[in-house]
Amino acid sequence: MSLLYKRVALIGLGLIASSIAHAIRRSEQVGEVVGYARSEATRETAREIGFCDQIAETLVDAVSGADLVILCVPIGAMGQLAAEIAPHLAQGATLSDVGSTKRAVIEAVRPHLSEHVHFIPAHPLAGTEQSGPRAGFAELFDNRWCLLTPLPGTDEAAKDKLVAFWRALGSNVDEMDPDHHDLVLAVTSHAPHLIAYTMVGVADDLGRVTDSEVVQYSAAGFRDFTRIAASDPTMWRDVFLSNKDATLEILGRFTEELFALQRAIRTGDGDHLHDYFTRTRAIRRGIIEAGQDTDAPDFGRGHG
Amino acid sequence: MSLLYKRVALIGLGLIASSIAHAIRRSEQVGEVVGYARSEATRETAREIGFCDQIAETLVDAVSGADLVILCVPIGAMGQLAAEIAPHLAQGATLSDVGSTKRAVIEAVRPHLSEHVHFIPAHPLAGTEQSGPRAGFAELFDNRWCLLTPLPGTDEAAKDKLVAFWRALGSNVDEMDPDHHDLVLAVTSHAPHLIAYTMVGVADDLGRVTDSEVVQYSAAGFRDFTRIAASDPTMWRDVFLSNKDATLEILGRFTEELFALQRAIRTGDGDHLHDYFTRTRAIRRGIIEAGQDTDAPDFGRGHG
Repeated sequence: MSLLYKRVALIGLGLIASSIAHAIRRSEQVGEVVGYARSEATRETAREIGFCDQIAETLVDAVSGADLVILCVPIGAMGQLAAEIAPHLAQGATLSDVGSTKRAVIEAVRPHLSEHVHFIPAHPLAGTEQSGPRAGFAELFDNRWCLLTPLPGTDEAAKDKLVAFWRALGSNVDEMDPDHHDLVLAVTSHAPHLIAYTMVGVADDLGRVTDSEVVQYSAAGFRDFTRIAASDPTMWRDVFLSNKDATLEILGRFTEELFALQRAIRTGDGDHLHDYFTRTRAIRRGIIEAGQDTDAPDFGRGHG
Repeated sequence: MSLLYKRVALIGLGLIASSIAHAIRRSEQVGEVVGYARSEATRETAREIGFCDQIAETLVDAVSGADLVILCVPIGAMGQLAAEIAPHLAQGATLSDVGSTKRAVIEAVRPHLSEHVHFIPAHPLAGTEQSGPRAGFAELFDNRWCLLTPLPGTDEAAKDKLVAFWRALGSNVDEMDPDHHDLVLAVTSHAPHLIAYTMVGVADDLGRVTDSEVVQYSAAGFRDFTRIAASDPTMWRDVFLSNKDATLEILGRFTEELFALQRAIRTGDGDHLHDYFTRTRAIRRGIIEAGQDTDAPDFGRGHG
């Protein structure tokens, strides 16, 4: 079997890049992997773990000669990065990214690129609440979705190769319009994250309930919120700032619905509550059937 | 070792009662366990699984001769149940419950009881998103907290025995004032549940994003919400109706905070977002240190 890419450059060496590197090694379909991170300490950690074949000392060294370059940095850093690497990208190379919003990444990156580079934005829907080069593992993308949001006129051969790459990493792959992607993710990820962050902040802030009470008695529901709210602050700041409109729209709908449920509680309308809670149960069933979670009980805590 | 109770009666045979029965059997500190549920089908299922020594055909048969009776039914059903069993409770028996709110249970149950019964409300902070007699397992309470909310003048010996009982089931045990309990749980459980229900309902309702998109792309955050929002509708309806004031107070604080974060998104105030997200991360650390979750990554999904 011939290799998918001769040389893949990963820019940024956090959870996603290190997982990509681990999964590439498992796939045996890439010649070599070069990594780069701006922080000396991160590069040193990556060298120590050894998930890349080499860690470059400069951005230019990292991308030179790569036929696939993946930007794995917070969205706010992507424009500047694209400007710096653009002159050094190889003829016919593919440039991709892993950003959680796509319209903003396209607007930040595209203006810097010349015609001879294939820019194909991507978003692997996978992650954990941990971050940094030590957090990565090869199985992160297994059976998860990677969404490509190619622009009109994208080279079909280059796109097919990137699809094959993500499949080799264990992902399912789908294509989506960038704006629709941003709306779907606002619903399935961005709004839920903001809500979880908010609730955890409220709990921390409430004078009459001590932090230790919150922490000890978190088993029923709150624990899952804290897991979400432990995600990387810089990454998430950039997600919200770069998907402002869709996130605010969904939060608006959320608030409307929350007020209706609050009113049902206040007026004692048990039927409204029961009907609502019955409907949401069905969605859970769909997620299990789609293979995106197991039906193991107890909110993910193992037993037995 | 002498037995803690000669005969324990479990009224209601759902997730919690069946788990108590399994855990009692594991503990070997109770003489016999009698179960009862109003539904014939539930009694039949319980007989088939066999987690009780016997399943009674009537409520009166179940509680007669029991030295511990535990009400394991939705909160809205407890008052009527207490009225029915009160004349049949043995002299010196302990009556307890597992309701998620405590003030409402006390108000509904206490008026029916005579002086010769020890009424000691309890709330095991354990559960899963599943329900019914098939959902129970012996380890449900291991290392979880059970909160007792004894009333002034409660018999110390009776209370000590109930504490020992919950410890024998694997729980940590703490005591709390009923109203404070209801506030703490509004923060750590009731408000998070309502918020999760709301968000899942919004996703289901949004015309421009299909249900299959929501289901397929749920891996990053939303999945945990659906797990919470799959919990038993009747139980949760009763929780909100019976802990109205505390839940509405916390939701009020939540909305206030959410609006501040929404404004930060709208105005592009990245520092506000970053600071907030950094603070919430620390709470997660506390929960792991308190043994109420592991730091296994990927939102509870196993790997490797």
